[in-house]
Amino acid sequence: MTHTPIRLGMVGGGKGAMIGNVHRIAARLDNRFALIAGALSTTPERNAESAAEIGIAPERTYDDFAVMAREEAARPDGIEAVSICTPNHVHFPAAKAFLEAGIHVICDKPMTSTLEDARALAQIAEEARALFVLTHNYSAYPQLRLAREMIARGDLGPIRLVQVEYAQDWLARPSDSKQAAWRGDPKKAGAGGSIGDIGTHAFQLARFVSGMVPERLAADLTSFVPGRAVDDNAQIMMRYASGAKGALWCSQVAPGTENGLKLRIYGETAGIEWAHETPETLWFTKLGEPARKLRRGAETMAGSRVPPGHPEGYLEGFANIYAEAACAIRARQAGQPHETLLPGIRDGVEGLEFIDACIRSAEADSAWVEVGHG
Amino acid sequence: MTHTPIRLGMVGGGKGAMIGNVHRIAARLDNRFALIAGALSTTPERNAESAAEIGIAPERTYDDFAVMAREEAARPDGIEAVSICTPNHVHFPAAKAFLEAGIHVICDKPMTSTLEDARALAQIAEEARALFVLTHNYSAYPQLRLAREMIARGDLGPIRLVQVEYAQDWLARPSDSKQAAWRGDPKKAGAGGSIGDIGTHAFQLARFVSGMVPERLAADLTSFVPGRAVDDNAQIMMRYASGAKGALWCSQVAPGTENGLKLRIYGETAGIEWAHETPETLWFTKLGEPARKLRRGAETMAGSRVPPGHPEGYLEGFANIYAEAACAIRARQAGQPHETLLPGIRDGVEGLEFIDACIRSAEADSAWVEVGHG
Amino acid sequence: MTHTPIRLGMVGGGKGAMIGNVHRIAARLDNRFALIAGALSTTPERNAESAAEIGIAPERTYDDFAVMAREEAARPDGIEAVSICTPNHVHFPAAKAFLEAGIHVICDKPMTSTLEDARALAQIAEEARALFVLTHNYSAYPQLRLAREMIARGDLGPIRLVQVEYAQDWLARPSDSKQAAWRGDPKKAGAGGSIGDIGTHAFQLARFVSGMVPERLAADLTSFVPGRAVDDNAQIMMRYASGAKGALWCSQVAPGTENGLKLRIYGETAGIEWAHETPETLWFTKLGEPARKLRRGAETMAGSRVPPGHPEGYLEGFANIYAEAACAIRARQAGQPHETLLPGIRDGVEGLEFIDACIRSAEADSAWVEVGHG
Amino acid sequence: MTHTPIRLGMVGGGKGAMIGNVHRIAARLDNRFALIAGALSTTPERNAESAAEIGIAPERTYDDFAVMAREEAARPDGIEAVSICTPNHVHFPAAKAFLEAGIHVICDKPMTSTLEDARALAQIAEEARALFVLTHNYSAYPQLRLAREMIARGDLGPIRLVQVEYAQDWLARPSDSKQAAWRGDPKKAGAGGSIGDIGTHAFQLARFVSGMVPERLAADLTSFVPGRAVDDNAQIMMRYASGAKGALWCSQVAPGTENGLKLRIYGETAGIEWAHETPETLWFTKLGEPARKLRRGAETMAGSRVPPGHPEGYLEGFANIYAEAACAIRARQAGQPHETLLPGIRDGVEGLEFIDACIRSAEADSAWVEVGHG
Repeated sequence: MTHTPIRLGMVGGGKGAMIGNVHRIAARLDNRFALIAGALSTTPERNAESAAEIGIAPERTYDDFAVMAREEAARPDGIEAVSICTPNHVHFPAAKAFLEAGIHVICDKPMTSTLEDARALAQIAEEARALFVLTHNYSAYPQLRLAREMIARGDLGPIRLVQVEYAQDWLARPSDSKQAAWRGDPKKAGAGGSIGDIGTHAFQLARFVSGMVPERLAADLTSFVPGRAVDDNAQIMMRYASGAKGALWCSQVAPGTENGLKLRIYGETAGIEWAHETPETLWFTKLGEPARKLRRGAETMAGSRVPPGHPEGYLEGFANIYAEAACAIRARQAGQPHETLLPGIRDGVEGLEFIDACIRSAEADSAWVEVGHG
Repeated sequence: MTHTPIRLGMVGGGKGAMIGNVHRIAARLDNRFALIAGALSTTPERNAESAAEIGIAPERTYDDFAVMAREEAARPDGIEAVSICTPNHVHFPAAKAFLEAGIHVICDKPMTSTLEDARALAQIAEEARALFVLTHNYSAYPQLRLAREMIARGDLGPIRLVQVEYAQDWLARPSDSKQAAWRGDPKKAGAGGSIGDIGTHAFQLARFVSGMVPERLAADLTSFVPGRAVDDNAQIMMRYASGAKGALWCSQVAPGTENGLKLRIYGETAGIEWAHETPETLWFTKLGEPARKLRRGAETMAGSRVPPGHPEGYLEGFANIYAEAACAIRARQAGQPHETLLPGIRDGVEGLEFIDACIRSAEADSAWVEVGHG
Repeated sequence: MTHTPIRLGMVGGGKGAMIGNVHRIAARLDNRFALIAGALSTTPERNAESAAEIGIAPERTYDDFAVMAREEAARPDGIEAVSICTPNHVHFPAAKAFLEAGIHVICDKPMTSTLEDARALAQIAEEARALFVLTHNYSAYPQLRLAREMIARGDLGPIRLVQVEYAQDWLARPSDSKQAAWRGDPKKAGAGGSIGDIGTHAFQLARFVSGMVPERLAADLTSFVPGRAVDDNAQIMMRYASGAKGALWCSQVAPGTENGLKLRIYGETAGIEWAHETPETLWFTKLGEPARKLRRGAETMAGSRVPPGHPEGYLEGFANIYAEAACAIRARQAGQPHETLLPGIRDGVEGLEFIDACIRSAEADSAWVEVGHG
Repeated sequence: MTHTPIRLGMVGGGKGAMIGNVHRIAARLDNRFALIAGALSTTPERNAESAAEIGIAPERTYDDFAVMAREEAARPDGIEAVSICTPNHVHFPAAKAFLEAGIHVICDKPMTSTLEDARALAQIAEEARALFVLTHNYSAYPQLRLAREMIARGDLGPIRLVQVEYAQDWLARPSDSKQAAWRGDPKKAGAGGSIGDIGTHAFQLARFVSGMVPERLAADLTSFVPGRAVDDNAQIMMRYASGAKGALWCSQVAPGTENGLKLRIYGETAGIEWAHETPETLWFTKLGEPARKLRRGAETMAGSRVPPGHPEGYLEGFANIYAEAACAIRARQAGQPHETLLPGIRDGVEGLEFIDACIRSAEADSAWVEVGHG
């Protein structure tokens, strides 16, 4: 089986960006993509410099993503897919432009900056012949795929509790870094602060693994740092249609936490626990039995490249999204059916519905609100 | 300095009880108490058997705690203090009887089964010449004392977040053990299930260490196990007068958890983390500095008996309460002033106020309610 | 079943001692002993003060353990057992005196300060009608008892490897504390420094759990701290008759370690791992299966007093020795047969044989020497 | 700064190989290399298939590495560097061929299969104008670089103890996998089994971080699995010229271990501890102070690509070797001086000296032998 790399473009991810380089490494790691075009920055000079540094040819470097979508679609050697890693408010117009040009889209989260845009994009994606992939990368960790499968087949019994949290400390003080600036600007980030930036990851992961979307939630949002326009901490209670309950805590002001995503799910007969600090360990605890430390090798796991005990982490998990996107794109191009667990439009809409519900609940003094009917 | 052991009696704690033996070991560990009288069970035969097994003389074995209070108070060699470790609803009448007899009381938590009783007991205790100690034992762990001191002196900066949880799994299935039976009976346990049994511990500990009582809370209480008359899981959000926020999760239906009390507090400049599974470790994380693992010896700690690395745990922490109670009792008897961090009436009232607020919030579909004004 | 506490005396353990108080707490914890006589110090004044503080009556306070043995043996209410917790060189004469007086002995380790004494004591004990118990307390941790049982029944397959270590840091610098002083004096401690003080614990534990005594060992002993007369670090390789291999590292100069006893044993089909920092966890790893975290409750364990998740530690483990000694003493007094896993004379002789072999190997530039044929 | 990828070839690493793919990912991860030529297998058909799968053109696919070295050196667009990831015995002739052709070599460990070859290669490398890099990848973990720097600047005081271990379980049973087969064949692997395959990693890492090569060692080598021609377990004691002592344990038959490399170094005033299972954590313990958990961000660390809390692992560490090799190659090509911590010839010779010393000691019943004078 010979792999010809997929021709890839990128929107956003110029100098000073963090996530752009992550997308590039993830695309490159399994040799399934070749990055050949880009609109990396809205500042022409920075765009040119960034492209040169990455090795994108000047004639494939665009100052405007709309031009890029049009011109690349017209080239016989044009890009087949595009990675979108801009601030949130650009996700929608960029994804729209490429999807409508028939170019597959791999987009960072949250999918859009408003729920309205998310729903519009869902409509566009449905009509497009191109794929849309959302980089909820945590759901591509092998151990969390395993957890999902275990829950789906009933290893935990009916689910009672979903406890998820995502704690960071990098916004504990006022910051004017590039990363902090747009995330704190509702016009760019959307109405959510921590709930959009990391809460959506936690929410998606809980849904992905448990298989359940909460019916209602009650949220208490806080902006601890003076002058911050969006929340930097959220306490959220959740209720599921089945009677299960949940809690989600996300914070960007918890000193000593790094990128502390943690998921615990309890059913009638067993529980699972996973923490990002040790991403290759999944704890499985059956009532009355010793806790089992599930690792690669002990349970067979797809999505890893090296033997157990050779730590894989964030970039490898992110690369799994890209590797699977490559498979899905090639299958689509070949007209073949292809099943996938890749996060996509549905996850994106649910993420915005989550943000929307949090905002509505917070405005109603943490009253229970329905998720998805805002 | 020669210690004459304090003459101690016990109410409750007969055969089949769990916590009675804990109180006895804790009282004995530092050789400050001698257990010489008891009303260990309401069943005369079980009472006699239990007393004999423990080594209490038949003439000091009482079938009725009221008789015991009266007769012991009248003896020249009568008990100086009593441990109360009955089901919750007996705490009030027993504590009342001994306090009014001038006998010092060391009582298990929650202090009473109703808020009304708690407030009445507070009144009684205020007028009594005897001391009242409540065995919120976790607050006597040296590392949590250290955490409290660090927060009080500002090592964390102004507090923003209090995350506390207490998860167990022993009630994940229906149970008719003696322990489970009275805890599930509102007439004996009070209105709270998990919130009374373990939630009050979590609440007290968070208050003790942070130095703050929440102003309001919003609670979602659940009874997962069919037929259970009280909650076995609670998600609770908390708001403090300072603007700080908190979350408390307690559960007795989380498979794989044992006695999972965990406390994390975050201030503007630093955080602390403590988990019961490793009670001798306190994590201290200053923003931008490596996490520090505070252990005995590295920071001087009172309340330990052996060098660092010789694990102390639950019984030693519980014994700290007894050792300090002995000091307080001897000081009171000598008419000496005595400062102490021992939990007491105030903690007890607050515990019942917590339960009361949870119930009121739950009845109002998790609306925010004031704590302490029910 | 009514327990009358066993009348206990103590030799050593006066003011400033560490291990004396550990023995007293351990004896007291399960209410099986009453401490009523003592020769706590060789300095009469300190002896009197120490006894008063502990609550031993002046007429049962002796300046000479030989007198104590004789007089207590003659009293109708004399002690039934004695705890010996002096520096090592006193163990032999004291144990001899009490055994010959028919008083049961509970003695700290190493059993004696010379191999010659150890073998002499073995002879004395064999002829005595009293019991001899050696407080290798780690072997009384429930999880290590479980490990022993698992290995004995073949859960690991034939044993290939025994890796044991015991690291401390309290002697990393020159010290003139009372504890350090006698341990560094070969006349009091014996020829071994770290190998005697902690190496014997590691050696005994490895033997207890694995069921195997090494046939030969090769040792490299070091005194890192200038002026120290005994080893403070030892690297030891071990060979077993079965073909199994082992390594033992003990050190008192490893900064950051506390009381770091750790045992790993690997068989053909599975391994176990235990570390003193988390004494209630035993890891069990079968080849090709997830690691299992064996805790109380998941596997039933004797020797614990509280439910799983309520940490028990050093003092409880030490108390298990005392509780079992009480059972053994009462059985002996009643003339009943009694099986026990209590460490005793055999462990003591083996410990001195271990020290002796280490010294001989070190003198022969780490040559392999036989264990037990010095 | 525009990076033109370095043209890379590969010897070995065809289908069924493990480490070949690791080299390819590592080379690709930071976009500093383009793999365009290869002699991936000695079986022509497998070679062609492997090359096609990877995307190497047929005209750059060679059945003989000597031909490849000659022809690529002659092409204007020939490879600038080559990765050698064959079984050990091919390292020497392949490295010789490419170095003599002026092509930079990145070679897997151990450097050769005999000490004689290693010394010969050292001579060749000295005379070559091309670089030689040995992929002792663990030394490129940022935390271990930090540890090295801390020790070099005296943060631990004079070093007393070096404890290193490397435990696996994949050879606990007889295996005829491709990986196991050549590793068990002394003609291909060299005289060392576990000592060559993983012991050299442990030895190099201890030397790299401590800055010290042991002067002498005493080794006990074992082949536990029947029929195995080389050691699968080794207990090794080490002595340094400074008076420091060490121990190295490597095993491939320890059930439940995965790829358990662990390093602990103790100086007079502090210690460090690192374990491969959590590669981004370095423990630093100063005598009398709380242990510090050094992570990225808390201490600035080069060689990482994502913020703290986004786990990096084995592939990223391996990629650090490649990224630094790219810098070194470009500097060499530009005639610029370039300092580097890259492992190379010296590490390779030391590795073979280590294997040689272990074999000599084992043949002399674990006598102390000099390292490097065999």
